[in-house]
Amino acid sequence: MFRMGLIGGGGNGFIGRVHVTAATLDREAVLCAGAFSSDAERSRAAAKEFLVANDRAYGSYLEMLGREAQLPEEERIDFVSIATPNHTHAEIAKSALRAGFNVVCDKPMTTLLTDADDLVNEVRRSGKVFAVSHNYSGYPMVRQAREMMLNGDLGELLAVRVSYQQGWMHGMQPDETPERGAWKSDPSKNGRAGSLGDVGTHAFHLMSFITDARPTSLICQMQSYSAHHDLDDYGQALIQLEGNSSGSVTWSQVSHGRLNDLTIEVDGSKAALSWSQETPNQLLVRQLGKPLMTYDRNPGASYTTPAAREACRLPPGHPEAFFEAFANVYRDVFSAMRQSKGCKTESQRDPLFPTVEDGRDGVLFTQRCLESHDNDSEWVAW
Amino acid sequence: MFRMGLIGGGGNGFIGRVHVTAATLDREAVLCAGAFSSDAERSRAAAKEFLVANDRAYGSYLEMLGREAQLPEEERIDFVSIATPNHTHAEIAKSALRAGFNVVCDKPMTTLLTDADDLVNEVRRSGKVFAVSHNYSGYPMVRQAREMMLNGDLGELLAVRVSYQQGWMHGMQPDETPERGAWKSDPSKNGRAGSLGDVGTHAFHLMSFITDARPTSLICQMQSYSAHHDLDDYGQALIQLEGNSSGSVTWSQVSHGRLNDLTIEVDGSKAALSWSQETPNQLLVRQLGKPLMTYDRNPGASYTTPAAREACRLPPGHPEAFFEAFANVYRDVFSAMRQSKGCKTESQRDPLFPTVEDGRDGVLFTQRCLESHDNDSEWVAW
Amino acid sequence: MFRMGLIGGGGNGFIGRVHVTAATLDREAVLCAGAFSSDAERSRAAAKEFLVANDRAYGSYLEMLGREAQLPEEERIDFVSIATPNHTHAEIAKSALRAGFNVVCDKPMTTLLTDADDLVNEVRRSGKVFAVSHNYSGYPMVRQAREMMLNGDLGELLAVRVSYQQGWMHGMQPDETPERGAWKSDPSKNGRAGSLGDVGTHAFHLMSFITDARPTSLICQMQSYSAHHDLDDYGQALIQLEGNSSGSVTWSQVSHGRLNDLTIEVDGSKAALSWSQETPNQLLVRQLGKPLMTYDRNPGASYTTPAAREACRLPPGHPEAFFEAFANVYRDVFSAMRQSKGCKTESQRDPLFPTVEDGRDGVLFTQRCLESHDNDSEWVAW
Amino acid sequence: MFRMGLIGGGGNGFIGRVHVTAATLDREAVLCAGAFSSDAERSRAAAKEFLVANDRAYGSYLEMLGREAQLPEEERIDFVSIATPNHTHAEIAKSALRAGFNVVCDKPMTTLLTDADDLVNEVRRSGKVFAVSHNYSGYPMVRQAREMMLNGDLGELLAVRVSYQQGWMHGMQPDETPERGAWKSDPSKNGRAGSLGDVGTHAFHLMSFITDARPTSLICQMQSYSAHHDLDDYGQALIQLEGNSSGSVTWSQVSHGRLNDLTIEVDGSKAALSWSQETPNQLLVRQLGKPLMTYDRNPGASYTTPAAREACRLPPGHPEAFFEAFANVYRDVFSAMRQSKGCKTESQRDPLFPTVEDGRDGVLFTQRCLESHDNDSEWVAW
Repeated sequence: MFRMGLIGGGGNGFIGRVHVTAATLDREAVLCAGAFSSDAERSRAAAKEFLVANDRAYGSYLEMLGREAQLPEEERIDFVSIATPNHTHAEIAKSALRAGFNVVCDKPMTTLLTDADDLVNEVRRSGKVFAVSHNYSGYPMVRQAREMMLNGDLGELLAVRVSYQQGWMHGMQPDETPERGAWKSDPSKNGRAGSLGDVGTHAFHLMSFITDARPTSLICQMQSYSAHHDLDDYGQALIQLEGNSSGSVTWSQVSHGRLNDLTIEVDGSKAALSWSQETPNQLLVRQLGKPLMTYDRNPGASYTTPAAREACRLPPGHPEAFFEAFANVYRDVFSAMRQSKGCKTESQRDPLFPTVEDGRDGVLFTQRCLESHDNDSEWVAW
Repeated sequence: MFRMGLIGGGGNGFIGRVHVTAATLDREAVLCAGAFSSDAERSRAAAKEFLVANDRAYGSYLEMLGREAQLPEEERIDFVSIATPNHTHAEIAKSALRAGFNVVCDKPMTTLLTDADDLVNEVRRSGKVFAVSHNYSGYPMVRQAREMMLNGDLGELLAVRVSYQQGWMHGMQPDETPERGAWKSDPSKNGRAGSLGDVGTHAFHLMSFITDARPTSLICQMQSYSAHHDLDDYGQALIQLEGNSSGSVTWSQVSHGRLNDLTIEVDGSKAALSWSQETPNQLLVRQLGKPLMTYDRNPGASYTTPAAREACRLPPGHPEAFFEAFANVYRDVFSAMRQSKGCKTESQRDPLFPTVEDGRDGVLFTQRCLESHDNDSEWVAW
Repeated sequence: MFRMGLIGGGGNGFIGRVHVTAATLDREAVLCAGAFSSDAERSRAAAKEFLVANDRAYGSYLEMLGREAQLPEEERIDFVSIATPNHTHAEIAKSALRAGFNVVCDKPMTTLLTDADDLVNEVRRSGKVFAVSHNYSGYPMVRQAREMMLNGDLGELLAVRVSYQQGWMHGMQPDETPERGAWKSDPSKNGRAGSLGDVGTHAFHLMSFITDARPTSLICQMQSYSAHHDLDDYGQALIQLEGNSSGSVTWSQVSHGRLNDLTIEVDGSKAALSWSQETPNQLLVRQLGKPLMTYDRNPGASYTTPAAREACRLPPGHPEAFFEAFANVYRDVFSAMRQSKGCKTESQRDPLFPTVEDGRDGVLFTQRCLESHDNDSEWVAW
Repeated sequence: MFRMGLIGGGGNGFIGRVHVTAATLDREAVLCAGAFSSDAERSRAAAKEFLVANDRAYGSYLEMLGREAQLPEEERIDFVSIATPNHTHAEIAKSALRAGFNVVCDKPMTTLLTDADDLVNEVRRSGKVFAVSHNYSGYPMVRQAREMMLNGDLGELLAVRVSYQQGWMHGMQPDETPERGAWKSDPSKNGRAGSLGDVGTHAFHLMSFITDARPTSLICQMQSYSAHHDLDDYGQALIQLEGNSSGSVTWSQVSHGRLNDLTIEVDGSKAALSWSQETPNQLLVRQLGKPLMTYDRNPGASYTTPAAREACRLPPGHPEAFFEAFANVYRDVFSAMRQSKGCKTESQRDPLFPTVEDGRDGVLFTQRCLESHDNDSEWVAW
């Protein structure tokens, strides 16, 4: 049983709540403390809602880190989850690591590459477990896809296409402050990447997670179609991948009526697959001359790979979804935390969560896209 | 915050775990006690897994009810969830009510109509909250369907067809004891209904929940195709509904490759709809001359009805699934429990969970199906 | 090259045109004559549209049969296609057979069982080719389904469910005469079966065609929901099939927004399949523990059965649809016509079209449904 | 009634047959002559199969053009359809125009831009009807999409993404000659574009047809993954469109298991839509806050636009497919041919078929893609 401290989550956003639900879903963790808001009053109010004791509701993350560090080991929190605006992630994460806590950090990990580099070093120095919540990697069928790629079922990677489409930006008035995440359209808080940072980085991570392919160069074309702000809300990157493979990433928050449509298609030399986040329990597998095969999230099926099987909580046909996938990331974080304490875990496999290096890759992707965009959408080396 | 006591759930079955996850998902309840098994040793072992204190792991439900009732009110459990074999539900539930606890009972509520009648009386006498976990009624789009029917969007009910198909029975050897739910093929424990009780009652409840239509008569044809046992594993009922509407219910556990395919189609005089459990976030709405409309689970959309909206935890496109639907049943149970204590709740609407009367209807449906089957599949009055 | 004579098709209906397009699609036949209407003037007008020579536009089918029979063999028509109101089929068909012509008759073959019996005898006596245009049997994937059933891929038949849903009846005003097929709501012309005859017989034939299973008894429940006429527009039949299999047939023309949704599900002891007319190029095959397999209409795939392969004109992914399926029925009729002249055909297999016996089965199905309905929906022997 | 002469179509390819079936589907044309092969013997053999009189089976297109031109006007062919290897299209088309015949030319129109330019001039000079068979533009729902774009239903164009994926190249051995279209992998006959010419040009045309948007610049990345030949079999183009819109075109013949998956997504400022060739009777329409709407090919629905309605032959739910779409291109060609003779047509709208300018655009697209590819995938101006 791990003790969790949440940083952020006290406002209108839903992501803090998601972190708590995900972390506690399997009864491996309990929320014990929180710096839910930089306003002490609001933090205490949130604590009440989250059923956190009043004396462990802190008015700042620094207060929390300091006070928790002084609690007896069997009381103090084991890890913090960071659900604050993007530009604050790096500083908070470094402080938490230095204070001796494991960290789960929301994505994108930072808005600046230098911060990301620092954080990589800090994590290595600390020996702590550090994860970035690219939660889509927690879906069983995403893990199945990764394992099929890695074990050769798909042959060599030829091409991969990822697309992440939403449409809510059309609902924003030019001068409207969004109900949640107002900082997202403020470059000083969110960096220069708009939808690129918000959804593009998820798409890029999904591509990397499944294919393990690294870029060598890319070009990026971005647009700001919405009148709401000047950051990108539509973009496409063509990516040259190692081994002569082709990648493309498309992101949009101006595609009318799209809700949270993250879709990936992988072409291998032996087989191809596709997956969509809105129907997450199915993975489509295609092979020349064979019928289209729909692999279901099915812990008992012989076609199911180990990490996919372990990511299931329910029999097939009883759908699992967003919360459960998010919880799977936490599950592997907990497994790593146990391993770091020298405990054995049931699973033979290595924990499978987005690392600080993955987080840095996401920031690098953002950076390279912006560079290409600034340079008339010419190619930039990775 | 409510305190939960679980009865059953210590074996290989998954439903006990589901009850706990569902009840605690929103941090409205915590599991405090359990009679996880009739074997005291196993009950304590399960308690450990469930993070329940050793001294509240009981060796029988009677022990639990007795001991918990003597705890101070601010410590004792508020409700029990019953996840034991079907033939034991009635006795346990009655004992729990008499001991002063609210009850959430797995389905089917009982295997005998007389027991069901007793339980209806007992619940009324007790004044306690009693729910049957027909969890599919917790899906937001199922609630949307019900509200659209009730508010007249569909016009008058013409016909309703429900089908619940699984295929796992083909995996059972004739003399094999199933890994979980072995009692399900033992008529002395499960009653005479096989798949009828296991999935048919869910299908019947879904029909009733959405349409509010009551049967006047039915005929039933059942088969036992599998070599595994002699109970029904396939069946169909044609139902004459009040107001001259037609109903049909099909159940199967011998449909190869079907996982948990519960599907309903409702024809109204103004519009029609259909919903499938395996893609639970979508509700299809059809109207002559209009495009097919796919309503998404979308708390912000103007087409979303109140109970559906309240049943959402996440923005649209972030799928919610089985656990969340199950948790929605608990949410409304908790709402009723608060109301029964005189607390106000945020929601204007009445709690919406399957009641003891719904549970009795399910048992009656089973009974009538068996009667028709025994009588050469002739019509029987409801 | 066969010469075709069309009877009917001169009005607003689309089925006459469909017969011509289907018969001529593969350049195996050409329309040479027609009794397009019982009004000679209208028949000649239609002839012009159909590019039929004026002197072969006849004012009645009897005139056509008589005059054509006197033409030299190398000029006279080889077969007639009957696309007239249902109650006229039998008389026309018998006349055509007696005049020495092969016949393709629209469905249902007749409205009375006695007429159907007569026609069976007449066909046998004549030695002519006679087909009923249950065109859905012409879809390649329907033929695939039949062959998979017959060759044992599905194991033994357990259960089969067919449903045929349309919704256009909601668009009819109580006193409105439909633009086409006005006779369909006139029992004196259409018989006592409404939607049962119009779509139910198609559904029944599809079930029979794929499974080859014969009923032993059935019950039928029918309704007339629409204000438009008093014939059934919704109905369901439960069918006991030989060999202890279960069948059900549902038909509706009052299901809002359904267009032409003919869907079949077959449960076998080894595998199950499903097919829908509106996505006709795919056949879903399910087997316990295996991924859902989508068989595409794919003439080159190894999973494709012979009759399915021969029913394809295009490479996979280039969809074929209603006209092509209809044309496949004609293709096999032509094959039978060649065989009856002693010509060899390329195909090794027997022609596969709905015969006069199939047509009679359809009429019998109608009759038995009406009998059950008249008798309080009790069981009737087949 | 128009008389058709076919050039090509005598080999194993299917496209010649498709032209004939499409042109004659509605009985507006009849195949009267053909230069089916450059081998006179094979041409005569093909003529027999196509039911063309022996004396109008020609051994070369020049012979056909010359001899037909000398026939009386009421006997001679009205138009030729060119279904020969790509590198021969231009020369044949020019000759046919000069000989006074209307022309339907397979795509891509030519392999060289200079030839395309010549052909544009020749068509203008001739006053004849000239169409390129980008047959996917004939699907009713594609026409619906175009009309919705043009009439403002989608608002301004933001972005458009087209993808055309096949996978058959994985079935080719390195030294294998394909059963049909062997010339396609011979650059001297097919030009330097492989899959780009074969399917990429279709994708580009679909984008242009629906959006009417013109490129200003593009970059292209191409690969040759298959061992079969050195031409591209995978490629992507990012396109800057006039008015600051974004376009992307992806083509592949190495995507395992894809059959003929041509899919387009259009994002407008008011609504978005998507369409896939393998389910051609449906058009998905999305709008923020509204349910996903599936527009069916439905000639009677109020949402159906005029050109879509005229492109339907059957009631809704009776699917139409590849042949019918192809035939719709011919239908409009015939309409233009009638107009060019001064005949009125029923339709108020202008004929809607891919013109010589569209054909030239396709060749230009190919050229620009090759230029970008040759130049390290840099941007090239349109």
